[in-house]
Amino acid sequence: MTHSAQSTAYDVVKKYHHAWTGGDVETAMGYVADDVTCRAPGMDIDGKDAYRKFITGFAPALTGIGDIAEFTDGDRVALFYYPQTAATSTTPAAELFTVEGGRISESVLIFDRLSYGPPEQD
Amino acid sequence: MTHSAQSTAYDVVKKYHHAWTGGDVETAMGYVADDVTCRAPGMDIDGKDAYRKFITGFAPALTGIGDIAEFTDGDRVALFYYPQTAATSTTPAAELFTVEGGRISESVLIFDRLSYGPPEQD
Repeated sequence: MTHSAQSTAYDVVKKYHHAWTGGDVETAMGYVADDVTCRAPGMDIDGKDAYRKFITGFAPALTGIGDIAEFTDGDRVALFYYPQTAATSTTPAAELFTVEGGRISESVLIFDRLSYGPPEQD
Repeated sequence: MTHSAQSTAYDVVKKYHHAWTGGDVETAMGYVADDVTCRAPGMDIDGKDAYRKFITGFAPALTGIGDIAEFTDGDRVALFYYPQTAATSTTPAAELFTVEGGRISESVLIFDRLSYGPPEQD
């Protein structure tokens, strides 16, 4: 590797983030491991296919992104940002990524579902 | 100052976090600026009195804390953790703090309200 582990993890996450928030889910998925696990609000997602489905359901609602902060520590990268939608542009989200072998292997995604719209009915 | 800005911000946040998650809200408030602003799920909180009220309503429900990750970058510190309650011990929260003059001046607090219990009725 020509990059340090730290810059690589950061680069992978930034490229992933830039791609999906720009609506290019397939490019984003190139930075995701096949056996990715994601803890999202209300559900745990296992594997790239399920993760792609989740992001694909999400990405079209985005109208923009407001950056708040980003952090890197070894193979872990954290992003805080405002996902802007028709419903809100002031509800923050946080994502904590673990990068292994150049791909995102784990994600903890945190946001308040209630702030993005009414809860789904059972 | 005998500490670097970085270690001071981190120390302030860790002492704050340790105090309130241990139920000692008054000690925690010693690390909070009078004009603190906090963006919390569903509400923006202005000033230490309102912030104290918010944390005081929260702290008694805690049964424990599960650490996930922490990051520091200058005067900003991010914590990811599991606030353990009777309802859940697997719903993550993220907090992004800004520290100025040895006190927390700004906080962005992110968690999914739905995962901690049913939404309040209007």
